[in-house]
Amino acid sequence: MFLPSALKMSSRVSGHLEKAEEEEEEEEEEEDEEGSVNPTEVKMSQIVMPCHSNHQQELSVGQLLKWIDSSACLSAERHAGCPCVTASMDDIHFEHTISVGQVVNIKAKVNRAFNTSMEVGVQVSCEDLFLDRHWRVCHAYATFVTQRKNTGQKVILKPIVPHTEKEQVEYSVAAERRRVRMLHDDIIKDLLSHGSVLQADSWAVGSAVAAEKTKVESVELVLPPHANHQVNTFGGQIMAWMLNVATIAASRLSQAHPTLRTIDMFTFRGPSQVGDRLLLRAIVNNAFKNSMEVGVRAEADQEEGPNRHINSAFMTFEVLDAHRKPCTLPRIRPEPLEGGRRFQEAIARKKIRLDRKYIISRKQGEVPLSVPWDPRNQVYLSYNNVSALKMLAARNKWRLSSEKDKVRLYTMEQKSTLSFRVESKVDVPAHRAFCLLAELSNRPSWDIHYQ
Amino acid sequence: MFLPSALKMSSRVSGHLEKAEEEEEEEEEEEDEEGSVNPTEVKMSQIVMPCHSNHQQELSVGQLLKWIDSSACLSAERHAGCPCVTASMDDIHFEHTISVGQVVNIKAKVNRAFNTSMEVGVQVSCEDLFLDRHWRVCHAYATFVTQRKNTGQKVILKPIVPHTEKEQVEYSVAAERRRVRMLHDDIIKDLLSHGSVLQADSWAVGSAVAAEKTKVESVELVLPPHANHQVNTFGGQIMAWMLNVATIAASRLSQAHPTLRTIDMFTFRGPSQVGDRLLLRAIVNNAFKNSMEVGVRAEADQEEGPNRHINSAFMTFEVLDAHRKPCTLPRIRPEPLEGGRRFQEAIARKKIRLDRKYIISRKQGEVPLSVPWDPRNQVYLSYNNVSALKMLAARNKWRLSSEKDKVRLYTMEQKSTLSFRVESKVDVPAHRAFCLLAELSNRPSWDIHYQ
Amino acid sequence: MFLPSALKMSSRVSGHLEKAEEEEEEEEEEEDEEGSVNPTEVKMSQIVMPCHSNHQQELSVGQLLKWIDSSACLSAERHAGCPCVTASMDDIHFEHTISVGQVVNIKAKVNRAFNTSMEVGVQVSCEDLFLDRHWRVCHAYATFVTQRKNTGQKVILKPIVPHTEKEQVEYSVAAERRRVRMLHDDIIKDLLSHGSVLQADSWAVGSAVAAEKTKVESVELVLPPHANHQVNTFGGQIMAWMLNVATIAASRLSQAHPTLRTIDMFTFRGPSQVGDRLLLRAIVNNAFKNSMEVGVRAEADQEEGPNRHINSAFMTFEVLDAHRKPCTLPRIRPEPLEGGRRFQEAIARKKIRLDRKYIISRKQGEVPLSVPWDPRNQVYLSYNNVSALKMLAARNKWRLSSEKDKVRLYTMEQKSTLSFRVESKVDVPAHRAFCLLAELSNRPSWDIHYQ
Repeated sequence: MFLPSALKMSSRVSGHLEKAEEEEEEEEEEEDEEGSVNPTEVKMSQIVMPCHSNHQQELSVGQLLKWIDSSACLSAERHAGCPCVTASMDDIHFEHTISVGQVVNIKAKVNRAFNTSMEVGVQVSCEDLFLDRHWRVCHAYATFVTQRKNTGQKVILKPIVPHTEKEQVEYSVAAERRRVRMLHDDIIKDLLSHGSVLQADSWAVGSAVAAEKTKVESVELVLPPHANHQVNTFGGQIMAWMLNVATIAASRLSQAHPTLRTIDMFTFRGPSQVGDRLLLRAIVNNAFKNSMEVGVRAEADQEEGPNRHINSAFMTFEVLDAHRKPCTLPRIRPEPLEGGRRFQEAIARKKIRLDRKYIISRKQGEVPLSVPWDPRNQVYLSYNNVSALKMLAARNKWRLSSEKDKVRLYTMEQKSTLSFRVESKVDVPAHRAFCLLAELSNRPSWDIHYQ
Repeated sequence: MFLPSALKMSSRVSGHLEKAEEEEEEEEEEEDEEGSVNPTEVKMSQIVMPCHSNHQQELSVGQLLKWIDSSACLSAERHAGCPCVTASMDDIHFEHTISVGQVVNIKAKVNRAFNTSMEVGVQVSCEDLFLDRHWRVCHAYATFVTQRKNTGQKVILKPIVPHTEKEQVEYSVAAERRRVRMLHDDIIKDLLSHGSVLQADSWAVGSAVAAEKTKVESVELVLPPHANHQVNTFGGQIMAWMLNVATIAASRLSQAHPTLRTIDMFTFRGPSQVGDRLLLRAIVNNAFKNSMEVGVRAEADQEEGPNRHINSAFMTFEVLDAHRKPCTLPRIRPEPLEGGRRFQEAIARKKIRLDRKYIISRKQGEVPLSVPWDPRNQVYLSYNNVSALKMLAARNKWRLSSEKDKVRLYTMEQKSTLSFRVESKVDVPAHRAFCLLAELSNRPSWDIHYQ
Repeated sequence: MFLPSALKMSSRVSGHLEKAEEEEEEEEEEEDEEGSVNPTEVKMSQIVMPCHSNHQQELSVGQLLKWIDSSACLSAERHAGCPCVTASMDDIHFEHTISVGQVVNIKAKVNRAFNTSMEVGVQVSCEDLFLDRHWRVCHAYATFVTQRKNTGQKVILKPIVPHTEKEQVEYSVAAERRRVRMLHDDIIKDLLSHGSVLQADSWAVGSAVAAEKTKVESVELVLPPHANHQVNTFGGQIMAWMLNVATIAASRLSQAHPTLRTIDMFTFRGPSQVGDRLLLRAIVNNAFKNSMEVGVRAEADQEEGPNRHINSAFMTFEVLDAHRKPCTLPRIRPEPLEGGRRFQEAIARKKIRLDRKYIISRKQGEVPLSVPWDPRNQVYLSYNNVSALKMLAARNKWRLSSEKDKVRLYTMEQKSTLSFRVESKVDVPAHRAFCLLAELSNRPSWDIHYQ
């Protein structure tokens, strides 16, 4: 059994990763030119017209989410061979806004199929036709499930067979991302139980705005064009409606045009269908110096009994000045009762977002290279670092530099970055090793640096 | 039996009402903050995007009508528990236009359920997020009926139980508005039969534009997103299409961008469904100094036999100059035959609109406080005054000032307005009193001032 | 049997035709005012709103195509009395762009019904409400077929009975246009086999852009609002999607906003329905000095087996400078293999377009009055000239000038144009004359000037 023993220096390695990934992006473009034939790949190109734009002559993110979801769904259905619905969506961080007249290019493909669900990776870039330039707008990872058959049975998906090196990496990392998704709620609870975030921010500011003022409630009727195969509401459409009320809430706090930065990972709790009346509620949970978090909830109005919970999402907005620098925002005074909890959770989520951003950030100069290892972040940091390391380890440019006592040292040089990998064979029965490594709480028994 | 004997001074009282109602509006906002839980209340908030706008960067009224109808329909369906369709819409007077980037807030609730129909009240306001200001855009009263069951039976609606003072007032006045709706066509006929309006306006002007020049004909195919539950075409969608051709007709006369001011009360004559080809025809009926009335007719094209009449509406437009003052419009020369009748009826409708506006106007300085009592307007004026008085009487701030011989004098002071109410017990059997009062033609027998 | 013996001077006559047709256009407007009652006529009027516009504040041609197809379909269905689908569309040449705030007026009517298909003629004009001016935007001729009945049978259409002179002309010419449609592919092949076009243009230019760079691939899901009667995808919608990717391809070559000039005649190869995933691919086939041809292909993605071919179209774009003059475009370097063929075919199609334009052009000063007769163009030129002559011959202002030996000379004067017609009775049995004339390859046996 081979185990990368680099875990303890993960922060350093992830710093290197930034560079590595950047190059990979470029390579990827060239790879594409040669025309791989992944049967699940779906491309979409759209010119941004005024009907897609918000009041600032930019592509409305709601429309973009609909296109992302629609491309991803077509890719999933190509693999599944039957109708599919969006089950969840990982964090999406929007790096650029897109102007009217520019072109949006979307590429979606299935990274991995699990038993009854699939991960679809979506890359969105923006093309300025006049300048012949491309920018990356965002990456998204969505999971799709097949619609149950009439007999109520779930469709068992055939596995994905990765062909290119890039596909193999994505295939492998998809499993990691799946574990992060499943642990997401626990991580938040864990952070909150520490209580340390409580003191981090005091909200007893005199000029704070009452959160109630930002409350928005709206309703939308699901019509046939909002649904896939005339049945299940498109996840992207629900997100677009949620974003609509979230934007109003954010505007009410800031009294300015807010720009969406991030949508946190979320899961659809139940299906929605044509004819549903969707009840949408948004409120600003917390406002930080330069960003604010809006919580949005979508429910289907039921004739009888309580409403069905469809989705809850957290969206982070900024307000940009004329130089596109984020402005300072007013503080918020949470509502009584539930407001306090939401206020705290927003702080926890911000912490996670920030740490993740350090890890995956691609601009080395702007943020620290790594997140300092600290008992409070170890739970979720390890997953991200493991993912990063697996991607790094999977590259095929490693060279064996030296080998001594069955410990091998590999190196890989790319541009100005030197990465290294230590490989050592451990004499432990496989099932014991698996138990030790699979469960994080066992970590102190094999990692002496772990506190 | 208590009877407000204030009918003869209704004009004065209605003048006071203006003030009273204005305050009420403010109170209403605060009431809402405390969160009443009317189960039929539906809220909708929408940011106005370029896709909702006309060519002047303002929210197109067609889109607004779709949102109004959609919110009202959801409210009606919440009460009925089954699919509903728009049956009619009272006069709508648009007080403000709404710009791209502003937010439209719509609130709808069922005021009263009759046997198989309901009145839904809709309030539309506009919110400027940057200035943190709200304006009232319009009020609308729509009636909805349930769709017949498969068995052909009509659904009998459960009654509405009003809870707050405001709900009680609306509940009571809803019955009055229902009677006005039912008498509407008779009132027009009555006004026309008097013939007095004929001389009011001479159309033998040399520079008049031929009405034929403003004729517009168009067609729209009803598709699934235009219909509720994939069956009946949304009333708001039909109105939006009608407004489209009406706007072209108005533009052809004025050679400028017209602004919609009023849509007259109208009733849907028959249902329309997915697959219908709707034939829309508009023509300018008459042009006054600062406004013009456009008549629009919607029919469903039938394979065999004559077309089905769906709706006829009258819309009043103005043209605003750079200072938002109405411009002087060219006069119109009616078509031969039918044109003359339409020309006359437009004058009658204008008279009704104007009188109603005096009564419900909220800007005291602009228009006379009251409509002078006159045999020609008594028919419709009384209804409006009764409504106004009932709303005033239902307020809970009346104080008993004096009582003599079983006649009570109440007063109510609000800001700079003093209203008073005279109450007297009448010794008449209830059924006789009802007969006397219910039928307007009996009025001379109990109101000596009535001519 | 009467035969216009004017074929050999067709080029001259067609020059006259330009004038003649221009007058006719004016007359036609007046005719309409008197209100003909063609039961298949469908009118549509739409104000161009921002939601219909492209990023240059002009009506997007995609939206216009949807309106054209929708009006034509309603006209066809009025005649057929059952659901119809677009089968093909003749060349459309766009003469003007339309701005936001202007009005589009569309008039469609069935010109002729064949056994199971109909030709629908569509006239599109643009109206500036402020200037009270009208412009012709384009003419389109679409063929529609009825949807098969449940029994699989085709509906046999009742014939059209033309009433006005204009309707009679269109009725007669519709048959000619039908023959051109059926020969279209053969004409292209014929031109290519000559090989003469090969040398016409050398593409070994150093600065040429690689065609691959202009490749666009996108996908669209057909939803209920995209389909007629919730089944077959609207032809206009498919064309709008095709135009979207074509525009991106053209932009990539020109790095500027391209303006669509022409869509070449095309035929729908197979039906498309709700639920289809339409795969759209575009590439610039060839770039000439001031125009470029983009080829677009639409396929329906099949779960199993190869994709279904839905449509292929060729669209010509220009780039206009600030004075609305066409700019010089970069040259293109075709892809290996298929690219060369597409490059050649684009030259052939350009030749046909140009020759046709000469014939139907209405601005005498700009282009030569006629296409010089030449063995390479006789195949397709004759059809156009025959059509032009038949339209000219059908006019009712001819005067008999002289008659000698049973040969009659007619003349017609209109404005500055003098046309003449020679009529001679030929003593040939009707069936023999028909055989001689119907088949072009027999032409040398009766036309001694034909080479």
